Amino acid sequence: MTPQRILVVGSVALDTIRTPYGQAEEALGGSASYFSFSACHFSPVSVVAVVGQDFPVTHRDTFASRDIDLAGLEEAPGRTFRWRGEYMAELGHAHTLETQLNVFADFHPRLTDAHRRIPYVFLANIDPELQLEVLSQMRKPRLVLSDTMNYWIARKPDKVLEVLRRVDVALLNEEEARALAGETHLTRAAERLLEQGAHAVIIKKGEHGALYHSHDERFLTPAYPVVALTDPTGAGDSFAGGFVGLLARLDRGDGAALRQAMACGTAMASLAIEAFSPARLVETTREELEGRVRELHELVHYDLFPMF
Amino acid sequence: MTPQRILVVGSVALDTIRTPYGQAEEALGGSASYFSFSACHFSPVSVVAVVGQDFPVTHRDTFASRDIDLAGLEEAPGRTFRWRGEYMAELGHAHTLETQLNVFADFHPRLTDAHRRIPYVFLANIDPELQLEVLSQMRKPRLVLSDTMNYWIARKPDKVLEVLRRVDVALLNEEEARALAGETHLTRAAERLLEQGAHAVIIKKGEHGALYHSHDERFLTPAYPVVALTDPTGAGDSFAGGFVGLLARLDRGDGAALRQAMACGTAMASLAIEAFSPARLVETTREELEGRVRELHELVHYDLFPMF
Repeated sequence: MTPQRILVVGSVALDTIRTPYGQAEEALGGSASYFSFSACHFSPVSVVAVVGQDFPVTHRDTFASRDIDLAGLEEAPGRTFRWRGEYMAELGHAHTLETQLNVFADFHPRLTDAHRRIPYVFLANIDPELQLEVLSQMRKPRLVLSDTMNYWIARKPDKVLEVLRRVDVALLNEEEARALAGETHLTRAAERLLEQGAHAVIIKKGEHGALYHSHDERFLTPAYPVVALTDPTGAGDSFAGGFVGLLARLDRGDGAALRQAMACGTAMASLAIEAFSPARLVETTREELEGRVRELHELVHYDLFPMF
Repeated sequence: MTPQRILVVGSVALDTIRTPYGQAEEALGGSASYFSFSACHFSPVSVVAVVGQDFPVTHRDTFASRDIDLAGLEEAPGRTFRWRGEYMAELGHAHTLETQLNVFADFHPRLTDAHRRIPYVFLANIDPELQLEVLSQMRKPRLVLSDTMNYWIARKPDKVLEVLRRVDVALLNEEEARALAGETHLTRAAERLLEQGAHAVIIKKGEHGALYHSHDERFLTPAYPVVALTDPTGAGDSFAGGFVGLLARLDRGDGAALRQAMACGTAMASLAIEAFSPARLVETTREELEGRVRELHELVHYDLFPMF
């Protein structure tokens, strides 16, 4: 087994967040951060993102403490992307209080030749036109996973669909899947997305788990039953990190690998939401991670026997 | 294997229902009906319920066509219990337009000596005081499953909790579990109910499946991905029928049996909601049922392998 390198193109941010369980000021955030600290437990990661000149050196040190290559982390003149948000009792939705795009407003992913040869890729939630630009520069990647958000589905649905058609797996939450498919019923929405040209979709259902749907495979993972829920930020990107992470580690994309990769994604998401920022992802161990994957397996596993 | 008889105490009703997919007038309904037509595929069923003098003989014939004993179906002077409801696009909640309790208003379960010796019991949603009356008459049943509703949780929470403590498994939907436990977070709500004295609970999450939670077992079944959704009425009672049905058929209550019983419940619920009234439950075959249980198993099954 030779773990393969993973490329992530996304955001690195400073988050100020309040939830019913506490708050964090200018904590390390952004899709590329959550993804990297999740995926790096499985395979080495290279980040392509941008920060401002004010990006704290302690955060760089945190990345450096793991197998994460920051050569593609551009430092642009100006301030780092900042997000301020709040979660109410339900924790289902973030209420954005303030978004300062800062240097992220002009982010244009710059890929080196080394980046272009990386075989596993996560296109985090950025403008779908930038995602397409990155895709067209990649040299035969083995697996590309993409993410998006309602903002782009509402403004550039054709570009979002073009990304969907060109990647191997598209990650969407329930609302995004319904909006993009134009179909409320979730199973039908997943089928509609395949008809529209997607090869495979993963629909994230929050506390209800995640569904993998392709022409050959239909698979469901429940959420890990987290009790110490603290901050839902980054759950989706952490899921993506565990999912791509295991596949890159195994260098496989068959059904058995995909199914366990869904469990790895679920386990990483469960860790991410137990603390503010990717703190739990940074400190977790292989033992803890294996324990959660095993628990998830036990939660659904049984040996079918004849009934009649 | 000697399939054991099952007793159900609940309602037999005439339902008039409108959903986005059609409507039904005075169709056979009621918790005992859905339960019986589901459970009878696994084991013989005895019904204790009440109907009025206007109860159509064709419905009696439908029961008689399956292994369902109606000796305990009392015919009281007056009209049969009627319910009129409507489901909107979301299908999550029924809007009750009219409830005519009629003969059900004075329903007082009358158990014969034969009824009292039946080893598997489903106490469908009736006044918890009546459920307790039935319980105190039973002679050492091997497994009792109970159901309830928000109406009783709001009015007689202590009685609902007393039932919970005295049965083997209590069936609740998400809202009912949250209301009874006084806890929003579902995993914590389930744990709180065990602390309050429940031996085991099954929390029904609709399209998100069902969770079994006891001191020894925690198990999750996804919902069967129904495409031909027509009328959600009776899903919970049909689930109960498949669950108790398999356990009574096997005469077992161990973890392996419980897990497959959850899948049987899920399969029966998925059939129930594909048509108005228990029509699909009446006509289904062992082959179809086994097929759905197998599909549910495939949806979550994988063989765990070492990752590191």
